[in-house]
Amino acid sequence: MKQIDVQKDILSSNEATASENSTLFSQKGIYVLNLMSSPGAGKTTLLERTIVLLKDTLSLGVIEGDIATSYDADRISAHGVPVTQINTGGACHLDSSMIKNALSTFDLDVLDLLIIENVGNLVCPAEFNLGEDAKVMVLSVTEGEDKPLKYPLMFRLSRALIINKVDLLPYTNCSLEKIIEDATSLNPDLSIFETSCTHMTGLNAWKAWLEKEIHTKRTRSIADG
Amino acid sequence: MKQIDVQKDILSSNEATASENSTLFSQKGIYVLNLMSSPGAGKTTLLERTIVLLKDTLSLGVIEGDIATSYDADRISAHGVPVTQINTGGACHLDSSMIKNALSTFDLDVLDLLIIENVGNLVCPAEFNLGEDAKVMVLSVTEGEDKPLKYPLMFRLSRALIINKVDLLPYTNCSLEKIIEDATSLNPDLSIFETSCTHMTGLNAWKAWLEKEIHTKRTRSIADG
Repeated sequence: MKQIDVQKDILSSNEATASENSTLFSQKGIYVLNLMSSPGAGKTTLLERTIVLLKDTLSLGVIEGDIATSYDADRISAHGVPVTQINTGGACHLDSSMIKNALSTFDLDVLDLLIIENVGNLVCPAEFNLGEDAKVMVLSVTEGEDKPLKYPLMFRLSRALIINKVDLLPYTNCSLEKIIEDATSLNPDLSIFETSCTHMTGLNAWKAWLEKEIHTKRTRSIADG
Repeated sequence: MKQIDVQKDILSSNEATASENSTLFSQKGIYVLNLMSSPGAGKTTLLERTIVLLKDTLSLGVIEGDIATSYDADRISAHGVPVTQINTGGACHLDSSMIKNALSTFDLDVLDLLIIENVGNLVCPAEFNLGEDAKVMVLSVTEGEDKPLKYPLMFRLSRALIINKVDLLPYTNCSLEKIIEDATSLNPDLSIFETSCTHMTGLNAWKAWLEKEIHTKRTRSIADG
């Protein structure tokens, strides 16, 4: 009997295209974020706040991944930033070939920062590299303190964790300390930010982290010639 | 060139086993719920409240689906109800063969109600029938009012929608009316309950719906001989 390992095959094909995307991003000097979370953790609102903070100093682009609808893309578009919508038509994550196809809709020569908002899902998006510089995950405190240990892969692979909706902490039984303790035990190098995108708190530290990341990539690219 | 439609093949194989499960549930007179939501919408707490409301009059069993850990199963077990944990090891949903395998851990001759808590995910769990009598989804108000239109399949296929964490409504910009309007437009037959599992509100209507469902299946089984 022969067995075809479909999942392994899909992932290795995804890695090859992710690597092509990554090379192209480096050539063009574009820093790329892959933003992931549960449905409703606040990715799009964080993205809107980030755009307002950065759009005067950086050239931004956004790719919006959704199962259906273009609501999020419409919200981003209102900020005057180029945005491309990918509707996965049922697939629960973005993959690197979807990103490759979407890149033709941008002027890559002028972009500094491309933010990809993945499909709302704590599982599969972590398994599919897109060619990004960093995975960043958003966790809202209303989801509960047990999420790092229940969805460990996403916490392990992320460079930064944004703990969002902290304004709701007084009304929940969620322990911020427990989230931070478990997330850090899974990933000691994780940069953690506590934000409320409705109350506009904690966003300057996130902005500073992102600017430093972009600067570091740029410096490295210049050093590499 | 030959093309193998993997997804179609997987789904049709899943349907066959789901149908076997469903036949077995009918033979044994067991009513089966498939409980689905985003991570952190409150499925496990709702399940705990439901157990307390029903365990004196019905014989209950629970299957807990998770990527990793047995935290939810431990919480259920503390209520003295038989519970079996399925760790999917990375898969973002339960399928019918996982359920079939788990059934051997229960005494099916005594069960009245089996509740399956699916993996926290608004996408794939809806596509995989398990042999259940009803899919029920839990949506917390903190996830936002745009979820029905962004994840339409789950709302279309569910028999009941539990809008949870309504105690947090005053602190969010979520419109309960918009959720209900969009969910009902996708699925006019949807039964909708507004609950707070921490403040213990709205649970009696949910209990009454569930008891009626179980009674209807039982009456039908007797009529069918």
